[in-house]
Amino acid sequence: MPSIDVCFSPYLLPLYPLEGKIAVAVDVLRATSSMVTALANGVAHIVPVSELHECLTYKDRNYLVAAERDGIKADGFDLGNSPFHYLEDEVKGRFLAITTTNGTQAINLSRAADEVLVGAMLNVGAVANYLIKAGKDVVVVCAGWKGIFNLEDTLFAGALADRLSGQFDLNHDATLAAHQLYTTNKTDLLGFLSKSSHVQRLERLHILPDIEFCLQEDKYKVVPVLQGDFLVPVELT
Amino acid sequence: MPSIDVCFSPYLLPLYPLEGKIAVAVDVLRATSSMVTALANGVAHIVPVSELHECLTYKDRNYLVAAERDGIKADGFDLGNSPFHYLEDEVKGRFLAITTTNGTQAINLSRAADEVLVGAMLNVGAVANYLIKAGKDVVVVCAGWKGIFNLEDTLFAGALADRLSGQFDLNHDATLAAHQLYTTNKTDLLGFLSKSSHVQRLERLHILPDIEFCLQEDKYKVVPVLQGDFLVPVELT
Repeated sequence: MPSIDVCFSPYLLPLYPLEGKIAVAVDVLRATSSMVTALANGVAHIVPVSELHECLTYKDRNYLVAAERDGIKADGFDLGNSPFHYLEDEVKGRFLAITTTNGTQAINLSRAADEVLVGAMLNVGAVANYLIKAGKDVVVVCAGWKGIFNLEDTLFAGALADRLSGQFDLNHDATLAAHQLYTTNKTDLLGFLSKSSHVQRLERLHILPDIEFCLQEDKYKVVPVLQGDFLVPVELT
Repeated sequence: MPSIDVCFSPYLLPLYPLEGKIAVAVDVLRATSSMVTALANGVAHIVPVSELHECLTYKDRNYLVAAERDGIKADGFDLGNSPFHYLEDEVKGRFLAITTTNGTQAINLSRAADEVLVGAMLNVGAVANYLIKAGKDVVVVCAGWKGIFNLEDTLFAGALADRLSGQFDLNHDATLAAHQLYTTNKTDLLGFLSKSSHVQRLERLHILPDIEFCLQEDKYKVVPVLQGDFLVPVELT
């Protein structure tokens, strides 16, 4: 039976050999939620970029460019990190280059894996179905907040473990913790998160509607899969 | 109000500035449980040492020397890592030098803090009382298993947060997670831990009695406090 493990911070990735496994990169608030929303709404592909200046170079190649630093849109970019930006008609059919404080780094640091997927509450069931079909060991790579453990990425890992229960071993300590935190709080994820100083900081940026949007489970069926430099949408039939 | 934060792995310590704070190093299974037991039973002081060869040099200075690697006593040492070793009469009044796979490193990596305490379930209430009296911000430094997140150190952090509730801010994400995991499982900590592949590995070493011993809360009132190179017993009256 394959297993699912959870890496709570990119700083811990050296302890998680990824070869032969599938990595699921997650930054629920809000990078990977925005990426899933974008691909579900017709963006053709996404280039996840670590640095602002590199991201901006894509503007000349007819990409939409998106950037967030410390929770707000960076100057000179078309879009920020709110999933609502990616519900607009103007994104359909476009290419997107995006850099964020935490999420794009988690994706790029996961490249040692056989495959890299992008997960969010919005597509957690679709990611689970993809993983069940693949049958390989899984590592959830939580972006955290500047490397520090955060609850929302942990709750995603727990929700994913819950979907994989019975078909994957959940007995790594991090997985057991994430799974119990999810099952204990699944009827009121927002209430649990609201105790967090990190989420209180995000709320001061007036993004409560974003947070509520990002906590919806299974809104989309698309799984962003990294192919070379591009995240492309895959939808299992 | 001071705060309590939790660092789930020594690998994450660069993200936790310790200056001005009190660090509580923990390795419930079994290094810090053994240290607390030793000082509660009359060991005069303990030198936590990172390397085997350094630890062995203390033998010539009339120290008891203790060493554990990968769960078992290392060759040439007087004692291993079982708390039962430290209940014997022969340890009373002796000096002890000890090195373990995870616990002694967590202590030595915490030295940037204003003070370093050693915590275990066995003395969690005493540690809480010490921290309440000190009134400084606290970081729990979990040893983990070779740096990887583990449940037992997390449950200690949650138990400590529970004792500090109302007098310390618990709203860091790691603290909220640890606290909820503890409160959900406090009536059956062993049952929860038994799901863990890490604890199953320890059980294969036939140390279930050790595990049960280490999960007892508030058995001892002693707080090991690092003074220079020595952990000395402090008992608040």
